Amino acid sequence: MPRKIIVIGAGAGGLTAASTARENDPDAIIDVFTEDEHIAYSPCAVIYAIEGVIKDFDSIIMHTPQFYKEKRNISVHTRTRVASVDVDKKTVTLASGTAMPYDSLVLATGGKMFVPPIEGARLPGAFTIKDVNGGKAIKAALQTTNCVVVVGAGVIGLMMAVAVRNLGKKVTVVERYPNVIPRIIDEDMAAIVQKHCEELGIRFVMGTPITAIKGKEKVESVVAGGVEYPCGTVIMATGIRANLDLPNQMGLEIGQLGAVRASGTLQPYRNDHLVKDIYVAGDMMMCESAATPGPIMSQLGSTAVRQGRVAGINAAGGYATYPAALSPWVTYLGEIQAAGTGLSKGLAEYFGLSTVEGKATGLTRARYYPGGKSITAKIIADKETHRILGGQLVGGEEVTGRINWLTASILKGATVEDFATSFENAYCPPTSMVKDVVNQAADALMEQLKLACQKK
Amino acid sequence: MPRKIIVIGAGAGGLTAASTARENDPDAIIDVFTEDEHIAYSPCAVIYAIEGVIKDFDSIIMHTPQFYKEKRNISVHTRTRVASVDVDKKTVTLASGTAMPYDSLVLATGGKMFVPPIEGARLPGAFTIKDVNGGKAIKAALQTTNCVVVVGAGVIGLMMAVAVRNLGKKVTVVERYPNVIPRIIDEDMAAIVQKHCEELGIRFVMGTPITAIKGKEKVESVVAGGVEYPCGTVIMATGIRANLDLPNQMGLEIGQLGAVRASGTLQPYRNDHLVKDIYVAGDMMMCESAATPGPIMSQLGSTAVRQGRVAGINAAGGYATYPAALSPWVTYLGEIQAAGTGLSKGLAEYFGLSTVEGKATGLTRARYYPGGKSITAKIIADKETHRILGGQLVGGEEVTGRINWLTASILKGATVEDFATSFENAYCPPTSMVKDVVNQAADALMEQLKLACQKK
Repeated sequence: MPRKIIVIGAGAGGLTAASTARENDPDAIIDVFTEDEHIAYSPCAVIYAIEGVIKDFDSIIMHTPQFYKEKRNISVHTRTRVASVDVDKKTVTLASGTAMPYDSLVLATGGKMFVPPIEGARLPGAFTIKDVNGGKAIKAALQTTNCVVVVGAGVIGLMMAVAVRNLGKKVTVVERYPNVIPRIIDEDMAAIVQKHCEELGIRFVMGTPITAIKGKEKVESVVAGGVEYPCGTVIMATGIRANLDLPNQMGLEIGQLGAVRASGTLQPYRNDHLVKDIYVAGDMMMCESAATPGPIMSQLGSTAVRQGRVAGINAAGGYATYPAALSPWVTYLGEIQAAGTGLSKGLAEYFGLSTVEGKATGLTRARYYPGGKSITAKIIADKETHRILGGQLVGGEEVTGRINWLTASILKGATVEDFATSFENAYCPPTSMVKDVVNQAADALMEQLKLACQKK
Repeated sequence: MPRKIIVIGAGAGGLTAASTARENDPDAIIDVFTEDEHIAYSPCAVIYAIEGVIKDFDSIIMHTPQFYKEKRNISVHTRTRVASVDVDKKTVTLASGTAMPYDSLVLATGGKMFVPPIEGARLPGAFTIKDVNGGKAIKAALQTTNCVVVVGAGVIGLMMAVAVRNLGKKVTVVERYPNVIPRIIDEDMAAIVQKHCEELGIRFVMGTPITAIKGKEKVESVVAGGVEYPCGTVIMATGIRANLDLPNQMGLEIGQLGAVRASGTLQPYRNDHLVKDIYVAGDMMMCESAATPGPIMSQLGSTAVRQGRVAGINAAGGYATYPAALSPWVTYLGEIQAAGTGLSKGLAEYFGLSTVEGKATGLTRARYYPGGKSITAKIIADKETHRILGGQLVGGEEVTGRINWLTASILKGATVEDFATSFENAYCPPTSMVKDVVNQAADALMEQLKLACQKK
């Protein structure tokens, strides 16, 4: 009898799980269910399609259900909701009532956009950034609006604000925390990002939660801090919460961050026991932090792909584990790239760690070589062990490789001393300084440690 | 009595040593001697000044002797040759006959361009790429030549060929080895680089040593493999050898790679003993490889800076050591960047290691995001331990951070498994693929290891 594998969710996690299961079991019957009409697209690419950097919404869709059927013998069922899962009987029941048995089940239903419970949140003209159809709706609305409020200054909110600004609209970003990309990057780095966005013409209302969206038949203004900001369109980028519809129905354990708790094999828990033959992947689950013991939410496509791979191997009867994660991320806003990995100073303090930090600003090329762009690197280390806990970068180019460099270093237990003394950097005038800004940040951190030592 | 520190050589190694010594000893009397007229410039920047990317030769010079005197109280003596060093009496004697005592001495006299011992090598119109004045002479010669032969297809030779080609000249590169950047990168990666240079219009004569430079009063042609290549200018980029004039005079031990052997503290040896109060830095010394036990030549400005720092600390009475090195490097040729770290497959085999390699080609952005450039990554690992020994990259952008990523990973003992399972990469459509090409290369390597395992 061939193995029956059911995957719920057709995002990065679910489709990677399905494809990986196929690689590991050529005979399995693999079905994927999704409520969405479109599959295999990158949600952040929706923003680029709204802006028009990517010409149309079709081109962000990597593959169709036909592709999966023909090339991988995987049946993808779009616009199909799974109503419930019976963990004991090992069956999935669709909204239509059809029940299907499984040998292995992968849950990858992702996240839901959080919409603040305020007056007017459902008015026409108020949007969340979610799927392809949602993106098309925003694009259509922007045809007739000149004034947009983006709620939330996280990475997605800022990306959206830049995209709308690039379309020539007036944009105001309203954020309840005092700095952009809150918690994820520290205030000093956030200030560089915000300043750049302001230079692009984006207005910020910081430290001010939105309290209402006003309008008769459609959005007319947003209220925050008692001030009314007129606008024709509101785009809410107020975060993603794990989609817990099925996990709650199934009685799976939800961890302290409001997402499914999973083992290294990505199996969920129920009544304090691992659930057999079920695996989770993507935005619906918590990860273990690799910087310090404790749970983190990753909520990245790149993470979902890695988890999907583990879930797929295990669903196909193999064995793989998902390790603790640092969740490195990068984004491009106007002319600058911002990136981070591991813990910010704020998050490290939340975890009870004492930190020291070092920061340096340099150029992406030798000083005398034309075209160099400013780049700032920050490294956060544990004050006692000098182990690096996290890093942040903001610069005009060449940020991604550097954040991966910091990520691998942290995962291998690197200390500030490693960076300051043994970690060499490649140099040529058109691509780097003779001492890279990351190494310079480590040197600055060494100075901080020396000072701290002298004070003792 | 203030400490008397003498530094011989005013390149990256010597000047970093002098500046670091000053930081560590505010009272020392520091003198730097160099035969060169100019100081504190990057030799590879000379090529950009010849091409005109950098407007003039002055702008590649970071600092003048006046700067060092005024800002750091360091006396830099240009056009001043040191004739000998008396190690026992601890004195330096200048060519003028003046003898100067020292408490600490830093030797950083760098390398000499190797000129093959062939007919015509000293004819007018035949150049080596060396210093600022040499660069000016090449620039002047190119005013009246349309046809140039570059001898040597190493990084410097290729950079020179691209620069001359960008000036609209006919360029032929003659190389004795069958592939460009021989030994440093492997044939498959070299092929990508060579193809790109050919697309720029550069002609290659490979696997063919030059046997003569012909001409009556000045260069008229180059002979290689029995074929005569007419040209008005020949630029020899046939490698750098350690400058051993002073080490030989001082009786210092020369290692098997023809360079000064040094301890971790960067002290040279004489009669099997460490020499007290003398330190070396830069192109004149051998390093220990961090990929496998054995000596390597680094010959990089970035290495010289790191060694200069160690030499400077020790010369000022402190204690620092220079660790084993991987010597990551990067270069920009036309539209592509090439980089490497650690051992190539060829070098690993020279060291007696069995290797497995993985390679992947991807894009620098998401497939659907405009402007992505091709990038190829290769990882070489030890067949037994799976430890990564080296990496190479060729791509249109964002290569430097990735090679630093590989470098730190190797230095921390990373295995292929680390890359394939735990090393996350940051992702956003305008700067990366959801799985980075470096991780994809590791996946390819894992497949090779699986196949090798199945064969057993």
